[in-house]
Amino acid sequence: MGLESAKMDHAETLMRLAISEAEKGIAAGQSPFGCTISLNGEVIAVAHNRVVADTDATAHAEINAIRAACQKIGDIHLSNAIVATTCEPCPMCMSALHWARVKQVYYGATIADAEGAGFNELTLSASTLLQQGGSNVELIHGPLQEACQALFRHWTSNSNRHCY
Amino acid sequence: MGLESAKMDHAETLMRLAISEAEKGIAAGQSPFGCTISLNGEVIAVAHNRVVADTDATAHAEINAIRAACQKIGDIHLSNAIVATTCEPCPMCMSALHWARVKQVYYGATIADAEGAGFNELTLSASTLLQQGGSNVELIHGPLQEACQALFRHWTSNSNRHCY
Repeated sequence: MGLESAKMDHAETLMRLAISEAEKGIAAGQSPFGCTISLNGEVIAVAHNRVVADTDATAHAEINAIRAACQKIGDIHLSNAIVATTCEPCPMCMSALHWARVKQVYYGATIADAEGAGFNELTLSASTLLQQGGSNVELIHGPLQEACQALFRHWTSNSNRHCY
Repeated sequence: MGLESAKMDHAETLMRLAISEAEKGIAAGQSPFGCTISLNGEVIAVAHNRVVADTDATAHAEINAIRAACQKIGDIHLSNAIVATTCEPCPMCMSALHWARVKQVYYGATIADAEGAGFNELTLSASTLLQQGGSNVELIHGPLQEACQALFRHWTSNSNRHCY
């Protein structure tokens, strides 16, 4: 297997974990977002959105995963970390990933998909934020985009969902 | 006292608390940032940056204050809240304040000041983020700008400081 192929294979493995974690969140009455972080090939954090569960407006999946990863490795910098998140990071989460110094961020669904599902998104793409902010975090669209979009459909079929 | 004058008086009171909290952070070896949140005239949260203390890349003053305020009032939305923060919010914190639905954000020093002190800032102003993102959070520069800038000078005189 070539290097690029191995990288995509790893990203897909991380994304499957993120999707599975988002499903756990949906089952627990939370919003349909999941995130996985790996370092040196090892998964160091998996988290779903817990805004409603924790009464915390900042508890998006990526923020929760960053916090857990920092605790796991005992460092505020997750240098060389690979991130897979089921939805394009909102500006809060994309900026947090910049502060955490991660290397790469793979995402599935888009901010437009989240907005379409009813979330009060800031309509600023993650790539625009990185470009205008002068960050060198690498952002990659894919893999498993359709499976990530399907999380919103699964979630919107739940009449008890909380949107914000 | 007129309404506008009373508003600025309240903002200045909140900013003094934020500056005092930032000084507590500096004394504890943390970064020089503080934030206060009030609701209906009552202070509901005061916090300083705890990134190093908590080994948490997301623990900026505003994020900590939002989390504490959500816990205090038992709601993920801080509607009508007034925020005073010693430095212009970075895109992570400005976006978090959007998600928390606060009404107004007063800030003292600027992102350029923080960058000048050595922080790895995304060079995207809070006003640009709000405008491009389509947010209706009100952002106001001042009061006590010089006192907020002085926090960086106080902090940089500490040889044990952590920059990130």
